[in-house]
Amino acid sequence: MALADTRFATRRRKLSAKLASMRIDDMLVTHMTHVRYLSGFSGSNGALVLSKDLSAEIATDGRYTTQIAEEVRDIEALIERPCAEALLQRIEPGRRVGFEADYVSVAALERLKKVLPEDVTLVPVSGAIEEIRITKDPIELANLTEIAAFTSAALEALVNAGELRAGRTEREVAADLEYRLRLAGAERTSFDTIVASGPNSAKPHHGAGDRVLEDGDLVTIDFGAHRAGFNSDMTRTFVIGEVTDFAREIYEVVLAAQAAGVRAATPGRALVDVDKACRDIIEEAGYGDFFVHSTGHGIGLDVHEAPSASTTGVGELTENMTLTIEPGIYVPGKGGVRIEDTLIITSGAPKIITGASKALTVV
Amino acid sequence: MALADTRFATRRRKLSAKLASMRIDDMLVTHMTHVRYLSGFSGSNGALVLSKDLSAEIATDGRYTTQIAEEVRDIEALIERPCAEALLQRIEPGRRVGFEADYVSVAALERLKKVLPEDVTLVPVSGAIEEIRITKDPIELANLTEIAAFTSAALEALVNAGELRAGRTEREVAADLEYRLRLAGAERTSFDTIVASGPNSAKPHHGAGDRVLEDGDLVTIDFGAHRAGFNSDMTRTFVIGEVTDFAREIYEVVLAAQAAGVRAATPGRALVDVDKACRDIIEEAGYGDFFVHSTGHGIGLDVHEAPSASTTGVGELTENMTLTIEPGIYVPGKGGVRIEDTLIITSGAPKIITGASKALTVV
Repeated sequence: MALADTRFATRRRKLSAKLASMRIDDMLVTHMTHVRYLSGFSGSNGALVLSKDLSAEIATDGRYTTQIAEEVRDIEALIERPCAEALLQRIEPGRRVGFEADYVSVAALERLKKVLPEDVTLVPVSGAIEEIRITKDPIELANLTEIAAFTSAALEALVNAGELRAGRTEREVAADLEYRLRLAGAERTSFDTIVASGPNSAKPHHGAGDRVLEDGDLVTIDFGAHRAGFNSDMTRTFVIGEVTDFAREIYEVVLAAQAAGVRAATPGRALVDVDKACRDIIEEAGYGDFFVHSTGHGIGLDVHEAPSASTTGVGELTENMTLTIEPGIYVPGKGGVRIEDTLIITSGAPKIITGASKALTVV
Repeated sequence: MALADTRFATRRRKLSAKLASMRIDDMLVTHMTHVRYLSGFSGSNGALVLSKDLSAEIATDGRYTTQIAEEVRDIEALIERPCAEALLQRIEPGRRVGFEADYVSVAALERLKKVLPEDVTLVPVSGAIEEIRITKDPIELANLTEIAAFTSAALEALVNAGELRAGRTEREVAADLEYRLRLAGAERTSFDTIVASGPNSAKPHHGAGDRVLEDGDLVTIDFGAHRAGFNSDMTRTFVIGEVTDFAREIYEVVLAAQAAGVRAATPGRALVDVDKACRDIIEEAGYGDFFVHSTGHGIGLDVHEAPSASTTGVGELTENMTLTIEPGIYVPGKGGVRIEDTLIITSGAPKIITGASKALTVV
């Protein structure tokens, strides 16, 4: 508990330093992912105010009286709803109060304005907490590593148990995989599981349907788990029965591109260059038009978060960021391959936390 | 397909009639649940503009070019992002354009304002589409009935297979239940499954953890499935091994309260009265302080939507609304019972679409 308290206070200290530079006295945090990030409170309703002097207040409703007392030991909790309004009404005159412009709806802002104390100014703030979240602390990295490990192990166990084979439907394979994740500790999937077989493997956003797996199919499995606020995300593509020349060719291209992306993922490297490292190999092989998405994204409290490794990616990698590397080739009507790992950026080579084999596997 | 097209056009006609009464020329719809409701498009990114003359345009990005052509046959699709901005820029001068004030963030509104054509006015709109959604059409009712049926059947199958028994963890029971839902056609759960055993059954919002089920436990299972945009929601409470006097007493009170709520759920009845019908029975039995939530909610594209049967519920029931009736008693340290059905309001007695037995069941 002492360790956890330090972590949340550290994050609040970072945000507080940003407030000063924005001439903001108090930050009203209403996005629940951010309330949790700054306090540890995991309920579904609440709000938090952090002041530039590091004092803080948190509010929730009566359903969470016991839970907030257990989860948040270093911030005074107010049990009153609506939570944001209750906190805002306690702000003293003359203060400039930041609010989360990316998460507060236009209607919610009107409700805040109705209870705004005299001589208090609301100031829209974008991206301040995201900028802190982009670099992960040791407890976050430990959580992400653990979840990635059981996610990766679940896929290996599925294959070893013979649950991925001709004659089964995409949906059955997805159900088996999710069952294994659930027993390993997942509270839910971090997004809808993709099991895309045969021609479906050429659709990057296929779900998992009633198609029956057949010999000769490529089968792309893209999936992740959510636990305690954190997410995992990985993809492997398998071959059923026999490998066609087409399948082997695009598999090898994607595998080489993925390895190049991983090698490029080091501190100081521009995100556009990480994308380019992957993309160049696919373009050189003549499949550039079939790599229709970006190379990767950060992962943490959200399954997709900053940074973005794409042709328009902004900035460069720094230590303790996370990043997926997930190139793919999708040839309509014929099939596709995607291979995705989640990495932690370190001072040296990145640490791959989704360790399952990437060798071409025929099941 | 023809049937589906009629349905979406009918919904757009209803919204169009509302626009006229609000002096709005065009409605910019950006909440994806509502884009789907009005067009059938199920992608994750898009926007729609509906004009008062019933003409419409829809936009999405390049990932969904094929999908939108298959799903939306009666609206011209624009492939351009950002979608809302692309549609807004095509509005002619002099028009008043409504936007969804409950879903558009303050930052997103600023982005819209930046591309606003000259002499076009943005007007915040709240609740217009929700008011249409509150009454379900025949296809929605058929979908909701089907999903509720396989949800209910999954629980019965779980119990019949002996998967709910002493010695298993809450998590294992939840995993088995979710596996059955998945194979029956669920794309995911509609919310995190609750399997609350023994003392945990006294916590209305318990999840499913590592506690092992024991003889004498009350076990509350609250769960639902999501398929094709629609949701189900139901709760049953079971007893493991042997029934204590306490368990039998609160079970019978909750069961009687639930039946009273169902009887009260008829057209013309005020929602506060439906709540009161449940609550009175629990209060008369001396457990009023332990029924700590409201009686029920509508369900459809969202698992919780209007109407609300609570002490502050607004309005009255009309035919073809949906409503859950879910009273509970939660005695801290001792245990709790909740029993929940989903109903369709008809001209006569409501139709219960979650048909599993509510008789006290010992497993």
